[in-house]
Amino acid sequence: MSTNYFIVPEKDHNELVSAAYAKRGFLKDEADDAARFCAEAARHGIRTHNAIKALHLDEFLGSGSQGCVPGAEIIEKPSRFRAVKIWDAQKKLGQSTAYRALEECIKLADTYGVGIVAVDNAFHYLWGGGYMIEAARRGYIAYTNCTAALAEVVPFKGKFPTLGTNPHSWGFPTTDAVGFPIVVDWATSVVAMGRVQQFRREGMTLPPDAAVDEDGNVTQDPNKASSLLPFGAHKGYGLSLVNEIVAGLIGGSLPTLRSCWTPEDDGEKRTPCFFFQVIHPEAISSGVFAKGRDQAANIKAVIDDILGHGNEGCLLPGQMEADAAKLTDEHGGLLFSEAEIEAFNEMAVECGRPAWILDNLKQISI
Amino acid sequence: MSTNYFIVPEKDHNELVSAAYAKRGFLKDEADDAARFCAEAARHGIRTHNAIKALHLDEFLGSGSQGCVPGAEIIEKPSRFRAVKIWDAQKKLGQSTAYRALEECIKLADTYGVGIVAVDNAFHYLWGGGYMIEAARRGYIAYTNCTAALAEVVPFKGKFPTLGTNPHSWGFPTTDAVGFPIVVDWATSVVAMGRVQQFRREGMTLPPDAAVDEDGNVTQDPNKASSLLPFGAHKGYGLSLVNEIVAGLIGGSLPTLRSCWTPEDDGEKRTPCFFFQVIHPEAISSGVFAKGRDQAANIKAVIDDILGHGNEGCLLPGQMEADAAKLTDEHGGLLFSEAEIEAFNEMAVECGRPAWILDNLKQISI
Repeated sequence: MSTNYFIVPEKDHNELVSAAYAKRGFLKDEADDAARFCAEAARHGIRTHNAIKALHLDEFLGSGSQGCVPGAEIIEKPSRFRAVKIWDAQKKLGQSTAYRALEECIKLADTYGVGIVAVDNAFHYLWGGGYMIEAARRGYIAYTNCTAALAEVVPFKGKFPTLGTNPHSWGFPTTDAVGFPIVVDWATSVVAMGRVQQFRREGMTLPPDAAVDEDGNVTQDPNKASSLLPFGAHKGYGLSLVNEIVAGLIGGSLPTLRSCWTPEDDGEKRTPCFFFQVIHPEAISSGVFAKGRDQAANIKAVIDDILGHGNEGCLLPGQMEADAAKLTDEHGGLLFSEAEIEAFNEMAVECGRPAWILDNLKQISI
Repeated sequence: MSTNYFIVPEKDHNELVSAAYAKRGFLKDEADDAARFCAEAARHGIRTHNAIKALHLDEFLGSGSQGCVPGAEIIEKPSRFRAVKIWDAQKKLGQSTAYRALEECIKLADTYGVGIVAVDNAFHYLWGGGYMIEAARRGYIAYTNCTAALAEVVPFKGKFPTLGTNPHSWGFPTTDAVGFPIVVDWATSVVAMGRVQQFRREGMTLPPDAAVDEDGNVTQDPNKASSLLPFGAHKGYGLSLVNEIVAGLIGGSLPTLRSCWTPEDDGEKRTPCFFFQVIHPEAISSGVFAKGRDQAANIKAVIDDILGHGNEGCLLPGQMEADAAKLTDEHGGLLFSEAEIEAFNEMAVECGRPAWILDNLKQISI
């Protein structure tokens, strides 16, 4: 079954999304960061974190709630440690904070070989993989984790959701080796809550060990599912704890209160934290690769070995995103479904901008 | 069903293990590092990596093969990056290399906030969690990964084993918060090959999606199982790739050749790589924790929240290891089964040392 997509020039998309953010009080540079990141998500086929979703998130958890403050200034905390920065983001837009953290990590990595930026009082950065693709494209090894907005995941052998979907994302400079950055990027739950809702709508059965009902019993019925489970039993649980502990060391507070804003200040913090790290690939290179290869040729040889011997059908993490980006390039614009175009047009009405006329957009079927 | 254990004073254990390593040509300090690490494994209940296993490994893949060279000197490669060191271990004993890498990371983290040591031409460091417990006990955040000795794991959707069991280990300075270091430490396969052999011996069925037969078909029959699968489908596969790519950037070569030594040098490298990283917890602390808590009190509050609300029965990663260490403390020595004592006594005969007389050892039943 093929789907129809409409091609929207990136410039048109970015102008509209930037206007929508500006309408909500964000500064020009914040609105542009938001638009740029949404374009990256759309380019790489990440429909769960495109502009439509980003603006929803801002409405319910961000500037429409108490989670995000347009125009907030990041405060750098004093520190005696030269390769690590600690920032209080003061609830600045997540995409702007994350882009700046990444730039700072790259600057530190250029000098020290590694750079870390830990961010307190942050707001949702949407899709960790996007920042990792950016770093990897520029030739760096990168890693990020954050604490997710809501406590939706039950600890291994537990009953009640006290953990976020807490994602981890790694990016590697493998474009010379395999044609695109290898990006390992996922949440620590088996599925996301949005997927449970989709299964509910479509009358489908959940995968085993993905969700529990209100009493904490495992269920495959999406209508009974109320919380999620970590992937890989105790292993995914441990990975989710990593984010909470790192955030707790940075300055984050109780996961079950996160994003649950109260009218009055009770002294608790409800913001997520970010952890960003970049490593310069030369800093970890011994310089001695078998058969006189250079670093890129060596990675190619390693990947060829892994995906050889009958494993030729396996995908590399990041490959689907790279394929989506290729489509975008080929068609000269971002791909959106008809329903998505309609959502953009509602956005346009709100900002007093002209709607996109379907008949005027180039159309493809995939 | 309870098991009988014999209590061996740590000093006696370390003298014997050190003598066994010295007998194989290792220098005094290497043999002592090996003994110290084996004691740590035994103390924390890690029976898969105690002295008996360590010496087996050295025989089959280490100094008894071409994988490890007693007395080898680590070469530090020149680098312009101040917070990252790159070492050529020249196949030095894994435990000695890993302990030194950890010390160097701590030194770098004290100055820069973060320190990394990447190690090329390494030999098996046995149990990543052991180094993480050490760093965490001393108040640091630590992480390590390595490429495992053998390619036993099939990539997600693949047929042929081209990946190692490639472990990841994180350690956190949580002793003040929860009484012990939280240590997340596991291989990226569902089970280890030793576990498949155990299931075979005991006539048990493997967990689903843990192993494949010779044709690459998933099997729960341990007699048919020839290779392992990554945990959590594409997620564990991605985590395993992280180790191979990091190793490939450091200087590691084809995973399917690893540890497969040939009589003649064909220009390929067959050694694993290590990646060690330590972060100073002050470097990522915003200093502002809710309700005036300090960093340790904040971690305690976060963990209490995660393990509250009906989740009181959940374990923290590292808790079982901490409980084992408590038993060792209480009984004033390392706990070994009768079969293990017999294996140590064979070791003693080989080194010309007196055997341990079972009747002379304190005995407990657990």
